[in-house]
Amino acid sequence: MGSDEHEVLEAHAAFYDAFAGRDVDAMGDLWSTDAPVSCIHPGWSLLVGREAVLASWQSILEGPAAPDVVSSREIVHLFGDTALVMCVETLADGQLMATNVFRRDAGRWKIVHHQAGLISSGLDDDDDDDDDDDDDESPPGFLN
Amino acid sequence: MGSDEHEVLEAHAAFYDAFAGRDVDAMGDLWSTDAPVSCIHPGWSLLVGREAVLASWQSILEGPAAPDVVSSREIVHLFGDTALVMCVETLADGQLMATNVFRRDAGRWKIVHHQAGLISSGLDDDDDDDDDDDDDESPPGFLN
Repeated sequence: MGSDEHEVLEAHAAFYDAFAGRDVDAMGDLWSTDAPVSCIHPGWSLLVGREAVLASWQSILEGPAAPDVVSSREIVHLFGDTALVMCVETLADGQLMATNVFRRDAGRWKIVHHQAGLISSGLDDDDDDDDDDDDDESPPGFLN
Repeated sequence: MGSDEHEVLEAHAAFYDAFAGRDVDAMGDLWSTDAPVSCIHPGWSLLVGREAVLASWQSILEGPAAPDVVSSREIVHLFGDTALVMCVETLADGQLMATNVFRRDAGRWKIVHHQAGLISSGLDDDDDDDDDDDDDESPPGFLN
């Protein structure tokens, strides 16, 4: 693993540490101050700008139902000073797929974008049934 | 709007033209051949690599339930030779939020990542009811 990839994964881990620790200050420090930021929480519309994004994290982290989230299966794709980390987020009652985008600001990798959405069938789904019934959670045509 | 942003939005539009036109060849041409690619369809797990990603698009575009999708409300965030476009995808029976990541390859903006997920409450939701009931489509704690 290259050192850039290692640094990106450290920033990624810090993001989930802040999430798990409900640490609003750490979360704020992890998001870029120099580059434009945006965030799509599961089921939410797009949030743009530090103020809106960090307010959303504050409401989630300080809310009564702040989820316990663990990141796993990270895949890093490096594009110079920009990096994507895709991962599985495991919650108490389901799994999400997330995209986290990082940008190197003055030598530090900062988050510039996050999107997470439910996985309808888990990565570890062992059954091979070809269940093509429409699923209320999913738009038609995507799950086939 | 800068010329880079204009070019990125043209690539973004071409992606949704290929989607709407069920054009598997055009879709294949729009994805990067030089950079690592990945894709998260709504409800799906992560797909990595051109072969897996393009096979998924072929199955969606050639499937009996290929959705009619229209992109709107595009927001572009430029990071040098990498760009994010966030947009609303409107289908016959719902709206998704999407993140599309583009990378400039030999002067052409190519897609390197796509994630789309359902919006639980629409952007144009006019009702102000504070429905905090648990929603089966959404993980707890995110929609508050």
